[in-house]
Amino acid sequence: MSSSVSPLAPKNVPDMPTIAGVRLATAEAGIRYKNRTDVLLAVMDKGTAVAGVFTKSKCPSAPVEWCRSKLRGGKARALVVNSGNANAFTGKTGRSSTALTAKIAAKAVGCSEGEIFLASTGVIGEPLDATKFDGVLGRLAETAEPGDYLTAAKAIMTTDTFPKVATATVKLGKAKVTINGMAKGAGMIAPDMATMLSFIFTDAPIAPAALQALLKAGVEDTFNAVTIDGDTSTSDTLLAFATGAAAEHGAPKISRASDPRLKAFVKAFNQILANLSEQVARDGEGARKLVEITVEGAKTKASARKIAMSIANSPLVKTAIAGEDANWGRVVMAVGKAGEPADRDKLSISFNGIRVAKSGARDPSYDEAQVSEAMKAPEIAIKVSLGLGKGRDRVLTCDLTKEYVAINGDYRS
Amino acid sequence: MSSSVSPLAPKNVPDMPTIAGVRLATAEAGIRYKNRTDVLLAVMDKGTAVAGVFTKSKCPSAPVEWCRSKLRGGKARALVVNSGNANAFTGKTGRSSTALTAKIAAKAVGCSEGEIFLASTGVIGEPLDATKFDGVLGRLAETAEPGDYLTAAKAIMTTDTFPKVATATVKLGKAKVTINGMAKGAGMIAPDMATMLSFIFTDAPIAPAALQALLKAGVEDTFNAVTIDGDTSTSDTLLAFATGAAAEHGAPKISRASDPRLKAFVKAFNQILANLSEQVARDGEGARKLVEITVEGAKTKASARKIAMSIANSPLVKTAIAGEDANWGRVVMAVGKAGEPADRDKLSISFNGIRVAKSGARDPSYDEAQVSEAMKAPEIAIKVSLGLGKGRDRVLTCDLTKEYVAINGDYRS
Repeated sequence: MSSSVSPLAPKNVPDMPTIAGVRLATAEAGIRYKNRTDVLLAVMDKGTAVAGVFTKSKCPSAPVEWCRSKLRGGKARALVVNSGNANAFTGKTGRSSTALTAKIAAKAVGCSEGEIFLASTGVIGEPLDATKFDGVLGRLAETAEPGDYLTAAKAIMTTDTFPKVATATVKLGKAKVTINGMAKGAGMIAPDMATMLSFIFTDAPIAPAALQALLKAGVEDTFNAVTIDGDTSTSDTLLAFATGAAAEHGAPKISRASDPRLKAFVKAFNQILANLSEQVARDGEGARKLVEITVEGAKTKASARKIAMSIANSPLVKTAIAGEDANWGRVVMAVGKAGEPADRDKLSISFNGIRVAKSGARDPSYDEAQVSEAMKAPEIAIKVSLGLGKGRDRVLTCDLTKEYVAINGDYRS
Repeated sequence: MSSSVSPLAPKNVPDMPTIAGVRLATAEAGIRYKNRTDVLLAVMDKGTAVAGVFTKSKCPSAPVEWCRSKLRGGKARALVVNSGNANAFTGKTGRSSTALTAKIAAKAVGCSEGEIFLASTGVIGEPLDATKFDGVLGRLAETAEPGDYLTAAKAIMTTDTFPKVATATVKLGKAKVTINGMAKGAGMIAPDMATMLSFIFTDAPIAPAALQALLKAGVEDTFNAVTIDGDTSTSDTLLAFATGAAAEHGAPKISRASDPRLKAFVKAFNQILANLSEQVARDGEGARKLVEITVEGAKTKASARKIAMSIANSPLVKTAIAGEDANWGRVVMAVGKAGEPADRDKLSISFNGIRVAKSGARDPSYDEAQVSEAMKAPEIAIKVSLGLGKGRDRVLTCDLTKEYVAINGDYRS
């Protein structure tokens, strides 16, 4: 497996400010990896609101089940994330591991177990020995500092080739509030499988229900519009924490997601979700091209989404992009198999702005040399116009390379 | 691209008998390939019944639209198949190509255009110059002989690494009837995309509506239960022709699919569909392993099918098999993402008869060395028991190898 950084990694990593009310610490707990951090503890001040969205898998991991049940309380004091073991498909052992981890963390932080949130990523099917957290979490709680989000982002990586962070500062009422986010990628990973994890922290005073509504709306066109290989982890977790510390310097307390004072905040919040989810696509396993697929002229947005996902998940489309081939025939195939309304003879398709097909046939003005040159770019935009209605959507994916097969198939041989 | 024969090719090719009422001829029409046959003409006696099933693509090829519209007549006198050009996504030109091909074939055979059936496979988006059939089809109609089905199967290949034929002889009433079939594979193929085509011929006297019912029922657990990469051609076509010639030596005329006299015939017919569709999976692009996925204990058969297809189409499962890794964690993932009822803690999974997971966790008796040895076999059977109900289903697929990516991604570079 290659350990080199993805060629699609962002050129610049932002300076990450601190978030009032959040302290971070990382450690090497030796869960699986050697000589690298594999545990992150985030300690939040009392009164921190929490919201979360999770994998739609029917076989979710034990930590996902834990978080779902604790979300009802709406309050969080700590987040414990480990890499190296996903604590997924571990049966009853999995549930007792989450319970024990929460107990250790609650004692370390001084709160109830219902205020502890957990996420695990790494190997699946191996029991997670939660006793390894004993001692470690106590020490981390003592040493946690307002901290270094980049270091935290590194501790939650599995086969990510770069840490993923994003930040924004905006006005809420007349006060400045800050939003920080981190993520680890959906590369599904040797030796077994990994997971998309993302955590957002803000000092804005937003009530749990409002935060949940923002998060649910925000993921629709960001994290839910990214696919690497169409495979869904048992452990995908996105949690948002709002400490409310900005209320001390005048930020208004927000109880409804529809509050008009939230406008700038929502925009920044969604941009962070978009930024992090794009970084996940940029770090897809073996990815050499970032691929943006826009479908317009569909009957509805939902129909456009389904067609865009059909294109994004097609192995034939993805291998063609890896081969720098503007293979619009395969795009037509993927439109056709989506099962959504489409009229072959109204289809137009372009690659990086060059129309290669229109009205259901090859564009007569299509210049092969020009298109071939355009396909060498690291970012490929495929646009499909269906000509049926006003439905439009956009998803992100990456290409399918021999490196993907090597990462996911070679490690046992 | 490798031109060597798939290691999964059947060891024996059956001797193919003739079918009374069917004559075959092939030619090199130079549509795309050089020095190989690329046109097949099958001429059927008057009164031949025809049935067909086609791709579910919303963007079907011109020949698929042609066949669909002509099936209503229920009668066929000729089948014209060309390889090298799929006549798909060719707009109005595509429709005029099919019309012209049918006109030339009808003249050559001496029948109406509505009795001509067409199938094309090969490059998509390129106009098919049907004038190339002029002369060729006339000559083929004159020279057609009861013939050589293996030669015919070779003429319809694109990137198939071996021709696919099957045959059976059974009693219908007191008379012997014969069923022959041929197919070409769903390897989606350089330079653009190919297609699954299959043609069945029998001398049994079966009325069109009954033949259609048999075909529709027969594909459900055969051709519709095979997937290579989850991608669906615009051109998939399966046609069945029943000449009725066996009536001359006493076979009863069958007008209803439910006729009890059909019992042996239906069994043989379905076996041929199963045999040919398995050959298609054995010739999946880059395939090194044939993978059979059985899901049992689902709520319903339809639910079992959806879960089995989710496993079969998962790039992570398929790459694991390529790496000879009994990665049951990825199987759990694919069960979970199918969206069908599943209880993680009731799941059991086995590879080639060795149970690796039970009751939602690793099987304690699981012997890694034994499983690793078993995964070296060219045929891998994955069985998933959900423990919820009596729904059961089985699908076939192949592994996902670097060769697949090379075949589909490298040819332009």
